[in-house]
Amino acid sequence: MPIRELQYPVEPYNKVNRLKERANYALETIHQIVNSCPILHVSFQAPNSPFPVVLPMIGQMGSFSRPSADLGDVLDLYLHGYVSSRMMKIARSSSSGASSEGTGAAGAGEEAEAGLPLTVAASHLDGLVLALTPNAHSYNYRSAVLFGRATMVTDPAERLYAMELVTDSVVPGRWPHTRVPPNAAELQSTSILRVRIVSGSAKIRSGPPHDERGDMEDEALLDRVWTGVVPVHTVMGEPVAGGYNRVGEVPGYLEEWRKEANKDAEEFAREAAVKEVDSKKVGN
Amino acid sequence: MPIRELQYPVEPYNKVNRLKERANYALETIHQIVNSCPILHVSFQAPNSPFPVVLPMIGQMGSFSRPSADLGDVLDLYLHGYVSSRMMKIARSSSSGASSEGTGAAGAGEEAEAGLPLTVAASHLDGLVLALTPNAHSYNYRSAVLFGRATMVTDPAERLYAMELVTDSVVPGRWPHTRVPPNAAELQSTSILRVRIVSGSAKIRSGPPHDERGDMEDEALLDRVWTGVVPVHTVMGEPVAGGYNRVGEVPGYLEEWRKEANKDAEEFAREAAVKEVDSKKVGN
Repeated sequence: MPIRELQYPVEPYNKVNRLKERANYALETIHQIVNSCPILHVSFQAPNSPFPVVLPMIGQMGSFSRPSADLGDVLDLYLHGYVSSRMMKIARSSSSGASSEGTGAAGAGEEAEAGLPLTVAASHLDGLVLALTPNAHSYNYRSAVLFGRATMVTDPAERLYAMELVTDSVVPGRWPHTRVPPNAAELQSTSILRVRIVSGSAKIRSGPPHDERGDMEDEALLDRVWTGVVPVHTVMGEPVAGGYNRVGEVPGYLEEWRKEANKDAEEFAREAAVKEVDSKKVGN
Repeated sequence: MPIRELQYPVEPYNKVNRLKERANYALETIHQIVNSCPILHVSFQAPNSPFPVVLPMIGQMGSFSRPSADLGDVLDLYLHGYVSSRMMKIARSSSSGASSEGTGAAGAGEEAEAGLPLTVAASHLDGLVLALTPNAHSYNYRSAVLFGRATMVTDPAERLYAMELVTDSVVPGRWPHTRVPPNAAELQSTSILRVRIVSGSAKIRSGPPHDERGDMEDEALLDRVWTGVVPVHTVMGEPVAGGYNRVGEVPGYLEEWRKEANKDAEEFAREAAVKEVDSKKVGN
């Protein structure tokens, strides 16, 4: 664990301008939000279109050169490229000529300038915050955004590392309980992108509703409108065996993780309903 | 309800290229996915940055000119602009000069060319699909993407319509149970974007896992690996009253909706675990 908490540099494109008290630039906080998000939204500028491409993808942060790195360390984002053949094409073509496009925004060396510029968003909804007025309604949420440059991973060992990392992010310990390693055809058909992170930020809200003073002094209003938080969390239900399953009992590594994760998610949302976030302390 | 099901035009930027059998261009399907998604990811190209901006936002589709329009009709997307002051600035400035940028991608008239080009993504996770090999693992999911041009809503009646639409998308019937209408200060501080939709697409996967023939014939593998689906859904927990709440009982409109929505979500995920999607039939 680093002695001092690492923070992403605050650049014009990652600076949180509105509700700054909700902002957080700590690597650990941001990486935690990303790694616990089952669907990441990956955006990049498409050539010849005014509309950015946005793809829902599975991804996970890790470090191939130092697999024991913890969440607060400098990490890469690995994206599983199954759904994004367009992106792969652009990433391949931008790996070579990208440095000429350099806008200086990255503020980093040659290596950081190579690759397809990506923005990756991860958001969790933790609660519906119901106030006296529609204007004061809000969500409890944790959202993170990462900016980085993506290139195709070609090293076979790093590709295997990333496949295992991503598979085990869906169900911890699933990889060794399946038929591995992937065969040649599977390796060939699977594309992995590595995103070198340039910067990022997080925004977090938790706690009960707040209203304006004028409404708080309106006795009739206070007597009429229920105010509070509806905690929201994700649940993994009872596993449903597929048609060719022969294993009678759902395995322990899956059931124990599922129940634990459900319990944790419920407690997290419930705690977020009452406890104001101290954004300086999140992730410690 | 339209006599024939409306579909978005298939353009280069919204065409689903991979796993085409999961693609769906029906307005009703796409609008349903968007309107049931509590957090939308809104992306646009930022000036002077290679990284698109991605913002988590609340939004809802509707029709101000015909409020009784159903989900399968042509609708606008209203975005609540609270969190996106940067976007508002760009939307304001691009409302005037945008037509000169016209790429022809929209394939529509002058009006459609005005405004800030946005891509909006909505994704739901419905299950973890666990197969014999990591390569055949998947999610059950529903994802939609919309492409459109955003302008600020200035008409006071339309602004009120959108505020009520968005508030009631979070908790149906919440608007009339709060202090409304918004006062002058609230109206001034709330920005609403209207996105005229140019095109869109959805991608849906449901049903049990599938594996390659080679693995399906591996008896030892079949005896060893549990295969099936872990259904995933969102739960709204017991409401937690805030510090200044005085209403003893959680109101019926909130509790009935919450319990019903939880039940529906659980059933949906469980059904998605067993039933293959027929993408031609989704949303009918």
